[in-house]
Amino acid sequence: MNEDVERRPGEEAIPLPADYDAGLYFIGRVRTPWQNRGECPKNGTQTDAVCTLEVDAAYRPALQNLEGATHLIVLYWMDRAARDLVRQQPRHAPGSRGTFSLRSPARPNPIALSVVERLDIADGTVRVRGLDCIDGTPLLDIKPYFASTDSRPEARVDRAGTEKPATP
Amino acid sequence: MNEDVERRPGEEAIPLPADYDAGLYFIGRVRTPWQNRGECPKNGTQTDAVCTLEVDAAYRPALQNLEGATHLIVLYWMDRAARDLVRQQPRHAPGSRGTFSLRSPARPNPIALSVVERLDIADGTVRVRGLDCIDGTPLLDIKPYFASTDSRPEARVDRAGTEKPATP
Repeated sequence: MNEDVERRPGEEAIPLPADYDAGLYFIGRVRTPWQNRGECPKNGTQTDAVCTLEVDAAYRPALQNLEGATHLIVLYWMDRAARDLVRQQPRHAPGSRGTFSLRSPARPNPIALSVVERLDIADGTVRVRGLDCIDGTPLLDIKPYFASTDSRPEARVDRAGTEKPATP
Repeated sequence: MNEDVERRPGEEAIPLPADYDAGLYFIGRVRTPWQNRGECPKNGTQTDAVCTLEVDAAYRPALQNLEGATHLIVLYWMDRAARDLVRQQPRHAPGSRGTFSLRSPARPNPIALSVVERLDIADGTVRVRGLDCIDGTPLLDIKPYFASTDSRPEARVDRAGTEKPATP
């Protein structure tokens, strides 16, 4: 059973479409020190652990020039997450919240995103700092991080919304 | 023919796997003022245009609480992009570059990411500022942007790497 399929009060699931609209290739694996969700840090800024992106041989030429970027955006696939939850009940907060207002792995398309510090690159492996996922998580993409387009230090998230009751 | 399938000198394509490893659901569409790639801004910071995320009815409950976030991360699917290019030749630079060092839509999994300013939300539609894609682009995910985990104003990208010749 998926780790995220546990249902809590205030959660709302929907029937998903019978067919997918597009397909993904796993381009490699993320290697981390964590074997299950309980061990994982809450996010990648809460750990100094060095993790590695192991890129499959066919895709390794795509790593060229990556050493020019100090930071990377890593997309990975939360393959153990439920995909049918539109409202969720975070453990740490009262009330349910809309899935798109959360960074929970449970979402229609469980694509996780971390901004990581790029360390060294060799033999199809990129060492990074800033990941939070289980060892062996499928890797989807690596992108250079541009402060000009990706950094918003002024962004704010008001968590007061967590206390609203779920409404239809 | 895909707009991105044009091959330029220095580009390198690979045979893709016969089967996908995972499937995506399109959760809605991105509405923008741009009908083709030539009209699109280079990135979402180069335009003041207001765009809309039209979320399909089934997924609308997942928008609850989104008004708490000033900025969002939007993931969308570049459905016209080539997926087999591991090295590309940017129009504006000499030499080829690895796909993972570029934000080009052409990549094994053409998931694009923009950080947007959240405007108003009503009836399953989120108005935002900061998108750069063609009208009708499939929507994959919406996430709250957290400055604490997502912002790296100090990140740098050294484009000198673009002048390196492609090497195997």
